[in-house]
Amino acid sequence: MHGTLDPSTQLMNDMAHRARAAATRLATTSALKKSAALLAAAKAIRADKGVILAANQVDMSAGKKAGLTAALLDRLSVDFGRLESVAVAVENIAGLRDPVGMVIDQSVRPNGLHLSRVRVPLGVIGIIYESRPNVTVDAGALCLKSGNAAILRGGSEAVNTSRALHAAMIRGIVAEGLPADVIQLVQSTDRAIVGAMLKANGLIDIIIPRGGKALVARVQDEARVPVLAHLDGICHTYVDAKADPVKAREIVVNAKMRRTGVCGAMETLLIDRTFTAAASIIAALADTGCEVRGTPEICAIDPRVKAADASDWDTEYLDAICSIAFVDGVNGALAHIAAHSSAHTEAIITEDMATAEAFLAGVDSAIVMWNASTQFADGGEFGLGAEIGIATGRLHARGPVALEGLTTYKWLVRGNGQVRP
Amino acid sequence: MHGTLDPSTQLMNDMAHRARAAATRLATTSALKKSAALLAAAKAIRADKGVILAANQVDMSAGKKAGLTAALLDRLSVDFGRLESVAVAVENIAGLRDPVGMVIDQSVRPNGLHLSRVRVPLGVIGIIYESRPNVTVDAGALCLKSGNAAILRGGSEAVNTSRALHAAMIRGIVAEGLPADVIQLVQSTDRAIVGAMLKANGLIDIIIPRGGKALVARVQDEARVPVLAHLDGICHTYVDAKADPVKAREIVVNAKMRRTGVCGAMETLLIDRTFTAAASIIAALADTGCEVRGTPEICAIDPRVKAADASDWDTEYLDAICSIAFVDGVNGALAHIAAHSSAHTEAIITEDMATAEAFLAGVDSAIVMWNASTQFADGGEFGLGAEIGIATGRLHARGPVALEGLTTYKWLVRGNGQVRP
Repeated sequence: MHGTLDPSTQLMNDMAHRARAAATRLATTSALKKSAALLAAAKAIRADKGVILAANQVDMSAGKKAGLTAALLDRLSVDFGRLESVAVAVENIAGLRDPVGMVIDQSVRPNGLHLSRVRVPLGVIGIIYESRPNVTVDAGALCLKSGNAAILRGGSEAVNTSRALHAAMIRGIVAEGLPADVIQLVQSTDRAIVGAMLKANGLIDIIIPRGGKALVARVQDEARVPVLAHLDGICHTYVDAKADPVKAREIVVNAKMRRTGVCGAMETLLIDRTFTAAASIIAALADTGCEVRGTPEICAIDPRVKAADASDWDTEYLDAICSIAFVDGVNGALAHIAAHSSAHTEAIITEDMATAEAFLAGVDSAIVMWNASTQFADGGEFGLGAEIGIATGRLHARGPVALEGLTTYKWLVRGNGQVRP
Repeated sequence: MHGTLDPSTQLMNDMAHRARAAATRLATTSALKKSAALLAAAKAIRADKGVILAANQVDMSAGKKAGLTAALLDRLSVDFGRLESVAVAVENIAGLRDPVGMVIDQSVRPNGLHLSRVRVPLGVIGIIYESRPNVTVDAGALCLKSGNAAILRGGSEAVNTSRALHAAMIRGIVAEGLPADVIQLVQSTDRAIVGAMLKANGLIDIIIPRGGKALVARVQDEARVPVLAHLDGICHTYVDAKADPVKAREIVVNAKMRRTGVCGAMETLLIDRTFTAAASIIAALADTGCEVRGTPEICAIDPRVKAADASDWDTEYLDAICSIAFVDGVNGALAHIAAHSSAHTEAIITEDMATAEAFLAGVDSAIVMWNASTQFADGGEFGLGAEIGIATGRLHARGPVALEGLTTYKWLVRGNGQVRP
């Protein structure tokens, strides 16, 4: 069988087998030793700053020649400040509570058997990402901290920077006695490797794509390995009739405009038809320079509102654009959200607790908020220390995925000679 | 698009859409109402016993004509006693603690946001099973109790019995005001329907196969929907040098012989080379009528031992057959298990706590036991009330899967006007 595999599959299978061996060692490595390895990795990244910045210059020059957009070049770029942030992020991950070995629950059965469910690493995690070279370090560090081996496949534009970052990190990790294979970087830029990763079920336990919609869509479409991801963040805010007008305005403007390019940014605003301060919210959005698109009723309120078409309600703008519609109370909001949500994050603004609880119970999204900005949808803001992504699927982990989401559990049963009758 | 689908896909998609609508209602149905519906279902099953037993006679006659084995006919058969057990099982499920709404954890952030993770149903669950008609009721009841809609596809041999059981159950459920679509039974026996179920990703959230290895293998192989299952239960017991000889003998005989056809039955016995009472354990197994296959060293101990070949170490006998090998201490046992285990259940017998803990930490299986029979690998024995299956994959749920395994969670964020800086 082995000889008949295509080169990409052969390469990926070899990497995955080495990763499994490293994962087996890492699964029983102490929290202290994993932290020490990460601190050493941060130190090595700082020590290698000259090499890393030089490698980044190579990628930047190639990117400029290839005509990458300014936004892409910005993502690709690493300077002293960004490199220091990368090193600090690794140190922060080193300091997080180790999820491995945590007891989820335990019980004693009437026959005296002691049961416990204990967190263990998932095993081998594949990360597929685009031009941000810091993902090489962040994702690798989160996998290592949670006892998992990582196989990283970054964007070809960032390949030199990623290699330099990876080499530094591995030098630190190996110096602390862990195997180099705990974090492997795909060195080839051949896109067929991504296909081989996606098909490596049984060898890679989970794949996490980090990047734009086209990447995530390809991964979700082709993968035979389970995927943790979100495709869209079409986040809604519903302003109830009993919303406080000032809170509503501040939350709505923040949810839309604080950063328009993040997945937790509000894309659609739903306003109860009987809410009396709709005009002031619409005006506040337009005043910040947001393009407002609305139903005819909304257009009638403010001359700056453009007519929305049917596609607006299913669009993640990731830009200073907002679609607005009136709805009939919380049930109208729930119906609109059920029809158009991407199951990422939705919020209600109201002073009425019963209405708020009906919304919290009735919305089937990973995150549901009451009187808060959807821009809080973030692992760091949730106190998880760091996040490897946000998942909108229903299995395994939902919402911000951090260390705990990179673990599974096993059942330990301790007895003193019990046999089953 | 809709018109171009083949009839099986069309049928399954229609069922899945109806299931989703029912699941949406069920997700916010109170625990009390779900329990009442299950109690009514149990009552309706008892009331319909004449109809159900008559339907079973039709299946039994057809099965005999078709030449089903005695074992298959036994699985298919329903009598008064079995029907009463089915009804009691539903009542027991009605009485279990409802997982929906349970708070997994909660925290308050420095900015005052209150976060909680709350269990919610998975959504739509597909169950594919073979000849045991009681699965129609058990699986349907577990899905309903956990707030999920179920799509059931049972074996064609049991189709009349399943239809009669399903009709009774639904009558009870509908009488309590829940929609009939919460538990749908595929009425067609066309095998193409199974293919359509396996491909219904996005429409069905998870598929659980219940049946023999051929069924599970097909489901795991073809499914695009995530699957919770175990293919094999190649369970090992390792008898350490410091095992109590009497405990070891009793546990080993129970693990192998109590019921040989269950997935938690021991298939391979590993004995430390320096354990002094190996002969008595091997003799005890042979004395119970177990066929013992061993390495040359084991064959030399007892004339009843047959020579094992290489395939024995990877075989789930599900029969009164046991393969036995000597290993060098706990590390030898760990190496053998890593090479041959199906990640289901493994056990160590020892009086040495340090060795036991090394085994519990070092074995990467869903269930790891110390001084207990592997036959305890069962959701009921674990205090879960009932199980829908045992999973040996690494994602979502591992080991016995019961109500909690049929849920996911969402994040609720309660604020009082917070915006993100």
